[in-house]
Amino acid sequence: MKTENFEYKSPELTFRGYLAYDETKPGKRPGILVTDEAWGLSEHAKSRAERLAQLGYVALGVDMFGNGKQATSIEEGLQWIKALGEDPKTLRSRIRAAFDALSALPQVDRARIAAIGYCFGGTSVLELARSGAPLAGVVSFHGALQTRIPAEHNQMKAKVLVCTGADDPFIPLNQVHAFIDELKKAGVDYQVNIYSNTKHGFTNPKAHERGMEQVAYNKSSDERSWTAMQSFFHEIFGTTIPAATSL
Amino acid sequence: MKTENFEYKSPELTFRGYLAYDETKPGKRPGILVTDEAWGLSEHAKSRAERLAQLGYVALGVDMFGNGKQATSIEEGLQWIKALGEDPKTLRSRIRAAFDALSALPQVDRARIAAIGYCFGGTSVLELARSGAPLAGVVSFHGALQTRIPAEHNQMKAKVLVCTGADDPFIPLNQVHAFIDELKKAGVDYQVNIYSNTKHGFTNPKAHERGMEQVAYNKSSDERSWTAMQSFFHEIFGTTIPAATSL
Repeated sequence: MKTENFEYKSPELTFRGYLAYDETKPGKRPGILVTDEAWGLSEHAKSRAERLAQLGYVALGVDMFGNGKQATSIEEGLQWIKALGEDPKTLRSRIRAAFDALSALPQVDRARIAAIGYCFGGTSVLELARSGAPLAGVVSFHGALQTRIPAEHNQMKAKVLVCTGADDPFIPLNQVHAFIDELKKAGVDYQVNIYSNTKHGFTNPKAHERGMEQVAYNKSSDERSWTAMQSFFHEIFGTTIPAATSL
Repeated sequence: MKTENFEYKSPELTFRGYLAYDETKPGKRPGILVTDEAWGLSEHAKSRAERLAQLGYVALGVDMFGNGKQATSIEEGLQWIKALGEDPKTLRSRIRAAFDALSALPQVDRARIAAIGYCFGGTSVLELARSGAPLAGVVSFHGALQTRIPAEHNQMKAKVLVCTGADDPFIPLNQVHAFIDELKKAGVDYQVNIYSNTKHGFTNPKAHERGMEQVAYNKSSDERSWTAMQSFFHEIFGTTIPAATSL
């Protein structure tokens, strides 16, 4: 597996992403954007990019704040994502830059690109989908589902998988309902998976380190949602889950 | 694969189930109850039992009405399930008889039994779980989620997977919410998967034949939910999804 820091640009900023792929595999294969939480591109998303590379995909860890910035406090990260939440056009243009950079890579099949995201990263990949980017699919892991620019009818090309905790105080079930209503009106193909006894940030083994009570790792929900994502990828990319899923 | 009509009893009734398994495989393996819709044990559940047998499980198609009765009209089937809905103790005793019969089979690992159900069958397997039966898990495909005897705290041993259509008029999202509340209070491990553009009966290719507008087959949701069930079985039975789920 090859991993490297990977620079890409938008008119607004220069970004420092993280690319991971199996350099020994020939030919084009699907590409996956991996978008991290509120604190900047970190070990969490980088390790997921590496796991995707091991599964055979080309994965790009996304930088949403420019120049590889890392939040130095909870307050700073929350301020960054609040600002982007209030400016969805800028948010969309930043993640679109990552999408364009990934699509242009010679080892990537540009017709088979997906985006996954964690927390604010989940919100970001949903915004990318809403913008009508030519994605095959997006997966949000405990991402907030609201938007200032709802999906327009028949504009969202990506299929959507949302994995969310039943006990996530940042994403209560009425927010999930409203999201379902939005996507229904827009004619989007979506699935929502709700996990019991699961709070926010459930995919990050280090979730507790910031001392936020709304946030807790849940190994079972992490594994279930990762499995669900793999099944989703096989479906949207037209690859086959081998018959060996039998006993 | 071997299939046979399979008789079992409760104090109340004699039942005509349908057993399917690979008779060439040695040793004990997990057993799965398959419970059909309101009309009696039919081709739909039998074909699912056969598919489970091909995956390596021992599958028993369940008879919920006794003597292999088949509804001769929509009204008759709805009357049967209404009566059982109002008498959950009888409902539970009937499906418990199927569970006991399956558990007793020499080729079944009684520590690894699950139950799946379609529509009224989904409701029935959830009732079996609520009764505290020693199941590893249950999967409800478009089953109604309400009950007259809510799960008691820490009594439900089975893990739960609910697959439901976002546009199912019989199972609106507020019913899903109430179900989540019930299971949360009872400390149950559950997942709920919601599928877009999906009505009731979405797993049955012949769903349209009864001319009910609330009911429609959805191939995508059928396949997604079947895949989700397989992942769930690997988790609850401790079998492994091979690494070959990579590209």
